[in-house]
Amino acid sequence: MNDVKEDGWEIIRFNGHSQSILYEEVAIEAPLTIMINGSEFATIVCSPSNLRDLIVGFLASEGVIRLKDEIKRISIDEKLGFAYVDLNKSIDTSQIDHSKRFIGSCCGKSRQFYFKSDVKTAKTITSKLSITVDQCFHLMKELQVNSEQFIRTGGVHNAALATCDDILTIRTDIGRHNALDKIYGHIIQEKIGVADKLIVFSGRISSEVLLKISKIGVGILLSKSAPTDLGLQLADDLGITTIGFARGNKMNIYTHPDRVIDVDSNFP
Amino acid sequence: MNDVKEDGWEIIRFNGHSQSILYEEVAIEAPLTIMINGSEFATIVCSPSNLRDLIVGFLASEGVIRLKDEIKRISIDEKLGFAYVDLNKSIDTSQIDHSKRFIGSCCGKSRQFYFKSDVKTAKTITSKLSITVDQCFHLMKELQVNSEQFIRTGGVHNAALATCDDILTIRTDIGRHNALDKIYGHIIQEKIGVADKLIVFSGRISSEVLLKISKIGVGILLSKSAPTDLGLQLADDLGITTIGFARGNKMNIYTHPDRVIDVDSNFP
Repeated sequence: MNDVKEDGWEIIRFNGHSQSILYEEVAIEAPLTIMINGSEFATIVCSPSNLRDLIVGFLASEGVIRLKDEIKRISIDEKLGFAYVDLNKSIDTSQIDHSKRFIGSCCGKSRQFYFKSDVKTAKTITSKLSITVDQCFHLMKELQVNSEQFIRTGGVHNAALATCDDILTIRTDIGRHNALDKIYGHIIQEKIGVADKLIVFSGRISSEVLLKISKIGVGILLSKSAPTDLGLQLADDLGITTIGFARGNKMNIYTHPDRVIDVDSNFP
Repeated sequence: MNDVKEDGWEIIRFNGHSQSILYEEVAIEAPLTIMINGSEFATIVCSPSNLRDLIVGFLASEGVIRLKDEIKRISIDEKLGFAYVDLNKSIDTSQIDHSKRFIGSCCGKSRQFYFKSDVKTAKTITSKLSITVDQCFHLMKELQVNSEQFIRTGGVHNAALATCDDILTIRTDIGRHNALDKIYGHIIQEKIGVADKLIVFSGRISSEVLLKISKIGVGILLSKSAPTDLGLQLADDLGITTIGFARGNKMNIYTHPDRVIDVDSNFP
């Protein structure tokens, strides 16, 4: 019983009172400690895939870097869960904020906004991208079709970079913020322009997610899940179109509906 | 468009190409800064309900307190999002761990285990509680029936303290860890014995959740969601029965099936 085999688990499944023993694949969860210029910076619990994207996106989200060129070298010891990042600059230790801990509802990365009022420095999005309702339905369907790990384990979130017509890149993680950071890291490393792109996402639209979308610089967030009020207030302030509960051929537009072409212009 | 009214939002809903304007209730998300003995300790982003439970449970999860009697006074300024906690002891500043930040996949509270190897000090559960499969199905159904906010906003998690027969107390939060902390705080404040209790939960069974269950001291975790491999390894080590994907009349037992009465003893 409970033998661990690779990334699976032997389980007892009950269907009513009928029971059977099955082997079930389970989402992997692993700690990753990030060292910057020889000093411990942070430890993230994550899915151990696309770690380079995660590291770059996480450091960008945290405000440590903005561009790929600021990174001299990244070496990853996946087995021990350590990443060694050398930057082309010394790190400002005030960024590490030794004096306080901040813990978000779901990730702990929200300190900048809530506690340093830097919402004023968050980018207001002026993207002119527009999308049709059918394109939204199509993109969400594509995300789900391509989310093999979710289908297998049920325990992960997906974030994708997309044009209005196609999903370009999907990143997966047990942490929804990590999935977004992996996409952000991919964008930075590949130096991808985002003016004609949007993010397609499986997770809840919280304030922390909205701030990340603002940093990435896209104007449309399309998610399968629900928003929070603070997420929507930020989206409203930052000029981001948020679409939630996108499932099948239904979706809700919460903020800045002007980027969705089909919206009736007679609406208030 | 996008007027904020109380805790709701004016939205455009698309059902295919048919569009309508609706008023939709949205989960509230609010920051809460916890001051201990006059010093800033942490800021949590949470649903602003049962804040006293959250504070007590969070401090217990963090290892700052273990018993209600260690707390002299808690006053909460809900409007400004500040809580002032006076303890009957001075706080060990090493607990605050000034030197490092640790960010979990979904909450940032996992540092003790991953980084100080204190899994050795986590309680191994020796609960003799046992439960039937029908009781599990019944409890999960009760959790969902009673989860009004989830039904209304779709954006929250629920954690409940239960006997094998009934849900006793439900706590709700946009953060799944916060929902568990609220239940933990309730248990501590009401000095509830947990030997005959279990936790019924809507969220994913990650390592961080398992550590919290271990601290609370219950032997059975029943969840609607998927586990991670590290969560299951911990459950196996700590003697906790984990039941996941409990939906309708189906469920999976991942670890320590001996507490589920109906399990065929001929199984390996």
